[in-house]
Amino acid sequence: MPDSQPQPAPGAVRQITRDGEPDTVAVEEPLEIRVDGEPVAVTMRTPGHDEELALGFLYGEGLIETAHAAGLTPDFAANTIAVEGPLLRELATRRFYTSSSCGVCGKGAIDEVAVHSEPLAPGWPGAALSRERLAALPDRLVQPGFARTGGLHATGLFDSRLELVCVREDVGRHNAMDKVIGWALMQRRLPLSRCVLCVSGRLSFELVQKAAVAGAPVLVGVGAPTSLAVELAQERGLTLCGFARAERINVYTHPDRLKST
Amino acid sequence: MPDSQPQPAPGAVRQITRDGEPDTVAVEEPLEIRVDGEPVAVTMRTPGHDEELALGFLYGEGLIETAHAAGLTPDFAANTIAVEGPLLRELATRRFYTSSSCGVCGKGAIDEVAVHSEPLAPGWPGAALSRERLAALPDRLVQPGFARTGGLHATGLFDSRLELVCVREDVGRHNAMDKVIGWALMQRRLPLSRCVLCVSGRLSFELVQKAAVAGAPVLVGVGAPTSLAVELAQERGLTLCGFARAERINVYTHPDRLKST
Repeated sequence: MPDSQPQPAPGAVRQITRDGEPDTVAVEEPLEIRVDGEPVAVTMRTPGHDEELALGFLYGEGLIETAHAAGLTPDFAANTIAVEGPLLRELATRRFYTSSSCGVCGKGAIDEVAVHSEPLAPGWPGAALSRERLAALPDRLVQPGFARTGGLHATGLFDSRLELVCVREDVGRHNAMDKVIGWALMQRRLPLSRCVLCVSGRLSFELVQKAAVAGAPVLVGVGAPTSLAVELAQERGLTLCGFARAERINVYTHPDRLKST
Repeated sequence: MPDSQPQPAPGAVRQITRDGEPDTVAVEEPLEIRVDGEPVAVTMRTPGHDEELALGFLYGEGLIETAHAAGLTPDFAANTIAVEGPLLRELATRRFYTSSSCGVCGKGAIDEVAVHSEPLAPGWPGAALSRERLAALPDRLVQPGFARTGGLHATGLFDSRLELVCVREDVGRHNAMDKVIGWALMQRRLPLSRCVLCVSGRLSFELVQKAAVAGAPVLVGVGAPTSLAVELAQERGLTLCGFARAERINVYTHPDRLKST
């Protein structure tokens, strides 16, 4: 009989031997992203969906607007992915270094930390956003790699009816979100005007920025937000929710998108 | 009466208002590390112990061997710290970009991911390392900032008798370890030949590398290791332990330092 359980992405988990017994760990390997032949980023990521990762990363940095603008040549053996095509701005001498769970990698100066984003959609159709429904989103993230290893983060994309449309796993929180946004770019679903992004961990500045650049008006996390995440969400008009567990959730900014209770 | 409870580092947590009520979040702010006037790293960190962070980062990158080789000028208002003094190798065109929880930030090519480390001390004095004692280490990490926010990682340094000698908190896992190693550098305690490092989260490649470069033969984590963390620990001769909770612990590499059970 076929195994109907959700499976991790190919190459995302690996069997090892621990104390003489088989065990499973999350795979962490470097991926070098090259643009027009030049290395611009090295990220420690979990293999799988590397094209989405590269596209989502470049979109989040404001370097591309569409997927078809970028030709992609992944080389899985060498752990590189080459991107060609016109970029929206010059790379100049700026380089991007990213890793498993880093935030503002690639920003050469404090002033450059923030990436521009368009205004977010104000309301929500049908007044469907209740605290209870948002609090339940993490339970609906399908995480086959985490279930086997305990070592992977996930980001999920929920549509306007709060149906799960894409979920990706990675050892790095921001890689998982880059993969989801890269998927949305390839599906021509950006901006995510009527969508909710949900992450399995804490909420950093960088995750809020990636969500805002992708146009998602609501970001939900299982863990705590940082001070800078709250500040950026307030400024960008994003509804930031943390500690989403069971039926409880903390709303840090812009509760106006939620049903009044 | 004075408050005898452990307190977070000054500036590490911040009061905010959520749903009209006071709440506390972990502070995340950029810190730019400059060497001889040139910006070489921007890390998203929790303020406090910035000198230790800068020293530990530079030590982990193989750029300094002693604390007195580096003059430090922190500017808290500008979130910068300036380092002067002879470096062990040229920075050349290589730059380091780090952030809240990144791993191999600053490595411009995959070949450069690994930093050299000396061989680790083989055994342990008095055969004191039992699985039960290692499993109990996370419970002994003093985490006042985490207790208030749920948003901070910690690294603790335990001596040969497994007494806690230093603990630091940060929104970034690797920053917390850099701070502890920077403290040890200032205290002239490096290499950490008869010490155990213990981290509150998962075990990435970069954390194993930092521990090995600092000479710590044993690294314990509350969470899961990645595949590359296990591989590097195996290669460097480091005893890597994960999922340390209550009385249970998983030993992934070099169990020869532990008491036979």
